[in-house]
Amino acid sequence: MTPERWQKIQQVLARRQPDLTVLMERVHKWHNFSAVLRSCDAVGVLEAHLIPAAHGIPTEDQNPSRHTAATSGSAAKWVGLRTYPDTPSAFADLRSRGFVIYAAHFSHKAIDYREVDYTRPTCILLGTEKWGVTEEAATLADGHIVIPMMGMVQSLNVSVAAAVILFEAQRQRIQAGMYDRPRLEPALHQRLLFEWAYP
Amino acid sequence: MTPERWQKIQQVLARRQPDLTVLMERVHKWHNFSAVLRSCDAVGVLEAHLIPAAHGIPTEDQNPSRHTAATSGSAAKWVGLRTYPDTPSAFADLRSRGFVIYAAHFSHKAIDYREVDYTRPTCILLGTEKWGVTEEAATLADGHIVIPMMGMVQSLNVSVAAAVILFEAQRQRIQAGMYDRPRLEPALHQRLLFEWAYP
Ligand SMILES: C[S@@+](CC[C@H](N)C(=O)[O-])C[C@H]1O[C@@H](n2cnc3c(N)ncnc32)[C@H](O)[C@@H]1O
Ligand SMILES: C[S@@+](CC[C@H](N)C(=O)[O-])C[C@H]1O[C@@H](n2cnc3c(N)ncnc32)[C@H](O)[C@@H]1O
Repeated sequence: MTPERWQKIQQVLARRQPDLTVLMERVHKWHNFSAVLRSCDAVGVLEAHLIPAAHGIPTEDQNPSRHTAATSGSAAKWVGLRTYPDTPSAFADLRSRGFVIYAAHFSHKAIDYREVDYTRPTCILLGTEKWGVTEEAATLADGHIVIPMMGMVQSLNVSVAAAVILFEAQRQRIQAGMYDRPRLEPALHQRLLFEWAYP
Repeated sequence: MTPERWQKIQQVLARRQPDLTVLMERVHKWHNFSAVLRSCDAVGVLEAHLIPAAHGIPTEDQNPSRHTAATSGSAAKWVGLRTYPDTPSAFADLRSRGFVIYAAHFSHKAIDYREVDYTRPTCILLGTEKWGVTEEAATLADGHIVIPMMGMVQSLNVSVAAAVILFEAQRQRIQAGMYDRPRLEPALHQRLLFEWAYP
């Protein structure tokens, strides 16, 4: 552990946002799952949430690639992951912790993702690669958001959609000064500092 | 060809942005390459640019997956692709057509990607997965831009970085009314209409 590394860990923990997260509903491809976690890390998400598809949490073996392993794979070390057996239990847990849940989902009631106030406790719900957000989750969500599509293809890659929304949240939170002061409880900060520094 | 389809193609062509593009420097993984094209389609990029890695233009076979084929694969139909043997020839061609080229690249002179005016003719240069933008390209570029990273991992997935920048460009161009009036020469519009409608 170099002093620079210690410094870096402290700095990153001081910017972690316990009240910004994603809920992935059966995202199952490793390269998407790991790219989402990597973007989460970059905007300061403390913990991500997953309702795993039938075969479980995505792993590298399903799509072996040394590059993926070396880069995005490592984000899983820095972003916690909570899993749930189903959509209602995920919603119940997130709501009990104060999150407003926006489904990234095409529907007649969807609004432009830039209209949302992401400085509030916010969870972005992302749907599975081929079929998108389930009916059940769309109904439960507090609102639907879309990234405007100007082209022929109907949807974006799920990790791309996640990132575009998360970096809008980052923009709003930079502006609101939310990365300028520590947001974690001191006890949690200390515990994570220890876990990250001495794995 | 249904009337709705014809309508859709007309609408998309009316929003194409001939003066917004990307240059991928040896991006070689199919899932990244196809996700970049898909985001290009979504923000109205007319043609994308690629300096292929040694094994050529990325193809699905390198990473077979029915989902990828069914979805992102199709963006290649709607976004033109120009390829170049090397970086200087790509720069020469893009410059001759009036593009300002920003390298998405970590360096001491990099500025926040949100500070750029993307309503000007803009090309975003993206680096290869593991090694990033080459020295040569970084030197040739008109400027360097970065997406702020608040976490432990040093960089984003390349298709994610591309999308975050392209959707900032889209935001600026929406605001400037650049999707509200056709931007293509009538002759080109007609030619593409024909090609897209009767492939
Ligand atoms: C490949 S898309 C699923 C497409 C599916 N056919 C649908 O219509 O929902 C996977 C997920 O990415 C997210 N997504 C993709 N494009 C989006 C956009 N333009 N706006 C908001 N979310 C998007 C959504 O969460 C979606 O469930
Ligand atoms: C995986 S990154 C390459 C990482 C490489 N180690 C480096 O330092 O450049 C692939 C490409 O994605 C783009 N990229 C990734 N994260 C970025 C960020 N935060 N800002 C700007 N571009 C980024 C750059 O074009 C980069 O060349």
